[in-house]
Amino acid sequence: MHSPHFTAESSSDGMVERDFTVGDIPGVLWSPASGGDHAPLVLMGHGGGRHKKEPAMTGRARLLVNGCGFHAAVIDAPGHGDRPRTAHDERDIAALRAAQAAGEPEGPIVVPYNARLAELAVPEWQTVLDALQQLPEIGADGPVGYTGLGLGTAIGVPLVAAEPRITAAVFGMHWPDALVETAKRITVPIEFDMQWDNERIPREASLALFDAFASKEKTLHANAGKHFDWPRFEADSAVRFLARHLGRADTSAP
Amino acid sequence: MHSPHFTAESSSDGMVERDFTVGDIPGVLWSPASGGDHAPLVLMGHGGGRHKKEPAMTGRARLLVNGCGFHAAVIDAPGHGDRPRTAHDERDIAALRAAQAAGEPEGPIVVPYNARLAELAVPEWQTVLDALQQLPEIGADGPVGYTGLGLGTAIGVPLVAAEPRITAAVFGMHWPDALVETAKRITVPIEFDMQWDNERIPREASLALFDAFASKEKTLHANAGKHFDWPRFEADSAVRFLARHLGRADTSAP
Repeated sequence: MHSPHFTAESSSDGMVERDFTVGDIPGVLWSPASGGDHAPLVLMGHGGGRHKKEPAMTGRARLLVNGCGFHAAVIDAPGHGDRPRTAHDERDIAALRAAQAAGEPEGPIVVPYNARLAELAVPEWQTVLDALQQLPEIGADGPVGYTGLGLGTAIGVPLVAAEPRITAAVFGMHWPDALVETAKRITVPIEFDMQWDNERIPREASLALFDAFASKEKTLHANAGKHFDWPRFEADSAVRFLARHLGRADTSAP
Repeated sequence: MHSPHFTAESSSDGMVERDFTVGDIPGVLWSPASGGDHAPLVLMGHGGGRHKKEPAMTGRARLLVNGCGFHAAVIDAPGHGDRPRTAHDERDIAALRAAQAAGEPEGPIVVPYNARLAELAVPEWQTVLDALQQLPEIGADGPVGYTGLGLGTAIGVPLVAAEPRITAAVFGMHWPDALVETAKRITVPIEFDMQWDNERIPREASLALFDAFASKEKTLHANAGKHFDWPRFEADSAVRFLARHLGRADTSAP
């Protein structure tokens, strides 16, 4: 196993951003400019149709790096960001757009689409985690967390179930159908976000997925409003949750 | 309207504690030793069977005063703490203990008992708030919040519905039966706590009460575990919520 291959580096305000590849998987690693020696690492899953440098990812990275002194990493999901789309991807995306245009439920399309991406993405994440832990500033002994909503949950639930190195996770904003049985095998602390008036994901569906986790410590955060009304303060809450569980005393994140 | 009558004063670690009475209502006011000039005031409701200086109240007071620079006040609910119990109180408490001993549901006793106390307590709180706002260090122009679980919610929901001076509130851990119609009239931001596996209050009952609030901004925090497993970090969360809405930039509360 090799370290990631770094392809670009920049820094601002105390945070170093390094683009990398592991095989043909493109990703980005954010670290404290001070080095972050063996600091906790948070793997972040982007949303459906988004990519590794969407503002939700760069914003959380800043909270984790500058607020907590952690490392944070994202990879592009299959068919997303800098990665090629397959004919299967194109068909799924066309079906999703047709359903949206017709005002039909998205779940019957998004659920199997995301489940297919997760099957590809879980071993990719494990390979990337192996590679990141080869870096001397990360190492194999530091705590690892995960945070991702939507597609980030569709991939994250089977990843966390399969990966004992991940000891705390933030999930949410997804249908339970393909995830409930896997969620029942997860016992690490969980924070789970849902929108109370989500027009895409029925309320009972979100509650059922939260209910499925076997974690002794799990917290549901349900906020009034529709899918895209998800409030920004939940990003701060997710970072506090990860800071609390990944073993750093510094919980001064905003 | 007169200011509260102060009966005792002490201070420690930057916080001044003053016992007071307003008429025959005993209370306690915690303030920053630095004065807290026109700082926000948080009214706190204690739990059933508890009193104004239970650790949950003094602990939150310290977070609010030392962490946020706020004032915090509690009064003993009717029949609680330093207040006399009526024959009606004694009958309700005996019935509750009998139900607990028999393993029967508490709701049918606690709901009407708490509703009766709330009818008495709401005008008492309004009188006390009038009096506290006579103090030059509080004044009538500062923001006012409310936090209270259990009995504190049974009293707080009708109080907040009746009292336009209160602009943000933390509730939770109560049956919906006597509160749903009143909750529908509340529009200020709400944070609401429940225990996902509460052996006293059915899950659906808690979700129904949260659902009833008309607030555009409301957040449900549901934690795994039984009634008394309610996690301490929700006290920190409640204080952050109040700090965010009562208009202080200082959100460094732990």
